[in-house]
Amino acid sequence: MTRMDFTHVNAANQPTMVDVGQKAPTRRLARAHCRVVLGAELLGRVRAGELPSHKGPVMHTAILAGIMGAKKTADLIPLCHPLGLDDCQITIEPDGPDALRVVCTAVVTGRTGVEMEALTGASVAALTIYDMCKAFSHDITITGVQLIEKTGGKRDFLRSTNS
Amino acid sequence: MTRMDFTHVNAANQPTMVDVGQKAPTRRLARAHCRVVLGAELLGRVRAGELPSHKGPVMHTAILAGIMGAKKTADLIPLCHPLGLDDCQITIEPDGPDALRVVCTAVVTGRTGVEMEALTGASVAALTIYDMCKAFSHDITITGVQLIEKTGGKRDFLRSTNS
Amino acid sequence: MTRMDFTHVNAANQPTMVDVGQKAPTRRLARAHCRVVLGAELLGRVRAGELPSHKGPVMHTAILAGIMGAKKTADLIPLCHPLGLDDCQITIEPDGPDALRVVCTAVVTGRTGVEMEALTGASVAALTIYDMCKAFSHDITITGVQLIEKTGGKRDFLRSTNS
Amino acid sequence: MTRMDFTHVNAANQPTMVDVGQKAPTRRLARAHCRVVLGAELLGRVRAGELPSHKGPVMHTAILAGIMGAKKTADLIPLCHPLGLDDCQITIEPDGPDALRVVCTAVVTGRTGVEMEALTGASVAALTIYDMCKAFSHDITITGVQLIEKTGGKRDFLRSTNS
Amino acid sequence: MTRMDFTHVNAANQPTMVDVGQKAPTRRLARAHCRVVLGAELLGRVRAGELPSHKGPVMHTAILAGIMGAKKTADLIPLCHPLGLDDCQITIEPDGPDALRVVCTAVVTGRTGVEMEALTGASVAALTIYDMCKAFSHDITITGVQLIEKTGGKRDFLRSTNS
Amino acid sequence: MTRMDFTHVNAANQPTMVDVGQKAPTRRLARAHCRVVLGAELLGRVRAGELPSHKGPVMHTAILAGIMGAKKTADLIPLCHPLGLDDCQITIEPDGPDALRVVCTAVVTGRTGVEMEALTGASVAALTIYDMCKAFSHDITITGVQLIEKTGGKRDFLRSTNS
Repeated sequence: MTRMDFTHVNAANQPTMVDVGQKAPTRRLARAHCRVVLGAELLGRVRAGELPSHKGPVMHTAILAGIMGAKKTADLIPLCHPLGLDDCQITIEPDGPDALRVVCTAVVTGRTGVEMEALTGASVAALTIYDMCKAFSHDITITGVQLIEKTGGKRDFLRSTNS
Repeated sequence: MTRMDFTHVNAANQPTMVDVGQKAPTRRLARAHCRVVLGAELLGRVRAGELPSHKGPVMHTAILAGIMGAKKTADLIPLCHPLGLDDCQITIEPDGPDALRVVCTAVVTGRTGVEMEALTGASVAALTIYDMCKAFSHDITITGVQLIEKTGGKRDFLRSTNS
Repeated sequence: MTRMDFTHVNAANQPTMVDVGQKAPTRRLARAHCRVVLGAELLGRVRAGELPSHKGPVMHTAILAGIMGAKKTADLIPLCHPLGLDDCQITIEPDGPDALRVVCTAVVTGRTGVEMEALTGASVAALTIYDMCKAFSHDITITGVQLIEKTGGKRDFLRSTNS
Repeated sequence: MTRMDFTHVNAANQPTMVDVGQKAPTRRLARAHCRVVLGAELLGRVRAGELPSHKGPVMHTAILAGIMGAKKTADLIPLCHPLGLDDCQITIEPDGPDALRVVCTAVVTGRTGVEMEALTGASVAALTIYDMCKAFSHDITITGVQLIEKTGGKRDFLRSTNS
Repeated sequence: MTRMDFTHVNAANQPTMVDVGQKAPTRRLARAHCRVVLGAELLGRVRAGELPSHKGPVMHTAILAGIMGAKKTADLIPLCHPLGLDDCQITIEPDGPDALRVVCTAVVTGRTGVEMEALTGASVAALTIYDMCKAFSHDITITGVQLIEKTGGKRDFLRSTNS
Repeated sequence: MTRMDFTHVNAANQPTMVDVGQKAPTRRLARAHCRVVLGAELLGRVRAGELPSHKGPVMHTAILAGIMGAKKTADLIPLCHPLGLDDCQITIEPDGPDALRVVCTAVVTGRTGVEMEALTGASVAALTIYDMCKAFSHDITITGVQLIEKTGGKRDFLRSTNS
């Protein structure tokens, strides 16, 4: 077990990008999620502003922020490759009595995966929900930021529902 | 309990910024943290690359990414005010047998708080740790993204250690 | 009438910033507007998706894009000074049978005005409306991008309603 | 006529990107224009600074700002895809006794069109002309921001000269 | 002589920002320069395109790029504080038979100096000259990037002309 | 020898991009270097903080800043094409008794070269070293910013070691 196993750290222990030029461009998808635990009262306030079929401004704002954040991934994560996105979808749904669940799906036709784009999109959407609710309370926690699915690269990944 | 309580949503249910021009500039601090649960084996690998007194590249890279991310907060969170930062400090320490704890402290002399800067800095640092470890495993979870302290604004905030 | 009258062009005919350091910081406001002429049918489609009291996604998206665009003004307009914004408000309302009217109000406590922020915010909001409607038609025109009000600087400005 | 017709709004009325991954990359061009109405006196001042064969700083600055703005389109328009540009050309010419006409042509080899890049480039160039002239007057209007041509996608578009 | 002397490295050898909040805002100026050695033939080509009183596009483009680059300093240099600029001026003049000299002056009213803004502005202007000339030759060298003057902070600095 | 030879200046002497759409995508590499002359004492301080096998924070920070700067090239250099990078590597080594040498290698599979990415990456890394050392001294000079190698385009380039 040596330090050189880290793909982003070279033999001299310097941070390094990974050369992706030899890989063939493939269609790659990654999906990440997280939970924003607001408490029951605050979740109620958010939901009260959202008609059943017309998502209101908290969720809209968070969705847009998440999509725009996913597009900025290579600006935020130092060793990420810049890449175009074919698609980025974010959904936000109530998850239990006190939380919202954010799911971000990123898709690219490219030489490297979009896990970080999906994770960044979900995180920025969650932070935006926090920003819009923080006047009420700072008892808000973003939790469970995880990759849930990944296809199109060397190894597919699918998180079992119990993990 | 009406929808208009949301500071970032106006009476017409449109997203809106909050006018901070009437507030006096004060010295404001916010501190946020989160945990990156890596599992014991992966935490061991990260620590093996870090000498006791010389933090190695995973943590350095994450610290720098977090600071740069905190500076980008107003670009990422749609309704945040652009503001200069007097200071931004990030620390990353092992937290139990399987996780790293990221703490981000942001300070400004300004008309509005820096909670979102602290939360964004901690989140981007955590995402960068994820990026540098993901070749080993996707069993990584970022959790417990929370504000822990806030001073200098209308109301101070200090999270009790048990929450 | 000499070329040197241009504040952004110096005696050598080179582009130049204006030094604002000697001005006192004051509260400054600028308001700009524009019209997005969609045609009656397309305006109807946009309005059909927007409940009376809950602005729907076309307008929300445009409002958020405009606010974020206003924050990027100094990145976009080469000789603009970087400055924080105290506030930025965008409203979008139907204007006659075939158009939407965008109004952007920018406010700063600073040494220079925010006309360009208001004009940029209105323009980016209008471009976003265009983007969201362009699958239906390219018979869309953004027109009448103008400053309508400016206070707090050396000279106030208020556009007469007939111009 | 339902709301779901909007390509950027999904069945739940949430804003959404369009997945372009199934499209083949083709050579796509879009051309947009707008007019900056300065009034005869201000147009004269701008032209006095511009030698016949050597465009002076107002127009140069606007051309460069427009090109750089076109490259930032996906940062500005929330649901636009990030894409490389093969080319972006901007021309600025007098148009009648009181106005300048800006034309922006954007070209890409990609899976989606560049209408928004052309419109954004033209708009940012026009805003930059405004910025450089605003010390003289705020009687400046940007008008007629329109797509004039589009090739290489599903449907070509060419605006008739009378519209 | 210990490592902790570095203001941007803390006792744990981690990169760190410097807290500037306790400093009083003062008017601060920094001036940096560099030379772009093009060779006599290429310098002749650049000058042939520049009329005596109307700087042509190579220099204009470089000046604008340098100003915009100076505004991006806090985005580029990880531990720099974000700050507004009161002013940024760039001049480019022939310097001997084979080179151009770029001088960038940055001014702020703030809590920290603008040396990095001046150095970054000069460097980006020089890189832009390189970009516009590189089709002719890669025998171009950017050299002598230095601070030449600094006022308004704890210690003034003025480079002697012989160094 | 006419002005129109400049690829980034058109017949009307306006700045212009180069259309790269007709070129085939190829694997292209560019390598640039520069020296940061710190003086012997300051170089000693930097090296004292860097263990033989664990690069410390000055160099790490500079490497990361350079990689992130290379990714921002098209934002900084007005007429550069936006492009993804397959890889970007930066090394920093002592060079003689008083200087550090920065080498930046950029690689892309694309229609245009990455010289400017390599030069920008090296320059931003050097500026970051300057920023981290400037509390000690402003007797620091960045010098010899040059392209040293280029392959994969129309003409390969390799700088002879004596130039």
